[in-house]
Amino acid sequence: MPHTPVTAGNLHAGLPAAPRPDELFEPLLTTPGVRIERIVSTGQVTPDGEWYDQDTDEWVLLTAGLARLRIDGEDEDRALAPGDWLYLPAHCRHRVTWTQAAPPTIWLAVHVG
Amino acid sequence: MPHTPVTAGNLHAGLPAAPRPDELFEPLLTTPGVRIERIVSTGQVTPDGEWYDQDTDEWVLLTAGLARLRIDGEDEDRALAPGDWLYLPAHCRHRVTWTQAAPPTIWLAVHVG
Repeated sequence: MPHTPVTAGNLHAGLPAAPRPDELFEPLLTTPGVRIERIVSTGQVTPDGEWYDQDTDEWVLLTAGLARLRIDGEDEDRALAPGDWLYLPAHCRHRVTWTQAAPPTIWLAVHVG
Repeated sequence: MPHTPVTAGNLHAGLPAAPRPDELFEPLLTTPGVRIERIVSTGQVTPDGEWYDQDTDEWVLLTAGLARLRIDGEDEDRALAPGDWLYLPAHCRHRVTWTQAAPPTIWLAVHVG
C-alpha cells in the first residue's frame, strides 16, 4: 500500500451554476517543484493595460469553454478551444482578453519551479 | 520578448487514424523537475500480472475516450471518463485494465520529480 494516498477528481465537476464575479482557483496538487490548479473563468479577463508576468514557467491547457490570449510582442490574440495547450516561460508577458462565461471556461495550469 | 519561446499544440490533434499496436507517447514539456506527456491509447492495457511501479509521482488526466484503472489494494477498477484525474504517488502500484480503442483514449500525464 502506498504511504501517500491517491487523490482523484473531475475537472468538470463542481462548477458554479452561474457566472461569478471572480475566477475560481482550486489547487489540485502542490509539491515543492510543481503546483497544479484548476481555474474556472466565467467571462473574466485580465484588466485593461495589465499583464501577467510570472516568476515561474506555466504550462496551461484549456479543457472546456473558449478563450482568447494575447502574448506580448504578438500582433493578434490566440484563440483557444478545448484541448489547446500553451507553454508560457517565466516572464513571458501575457493577458487573457476574453473567456466564455457560460458554460464556464476551464483551465488546467501546471506551474513549474 | 521572452528568451524561451512559447510552444503550443492541441491534445486532440494528430491522432492515429486507426488503432495501433502500441500506445503513443509524445513529450510536451521536459524540465529538470517536471515532464508532461500526451499518451494515446487505442485499446492497450497493462499486460496480465504486471503493474506500473514508478519512482516518480504522476498526476494524470483523461481528456478523451474511456479507461479503467486498478490500484493495488483496491477491490474494484476505477472507471475513468473525460475530465477525471488521479494523483498516483511514487510506488503506488497500478495497472490499466481497459482503454477505449476508437475514438482513441487520450491521457495527459504530469511526472513530478
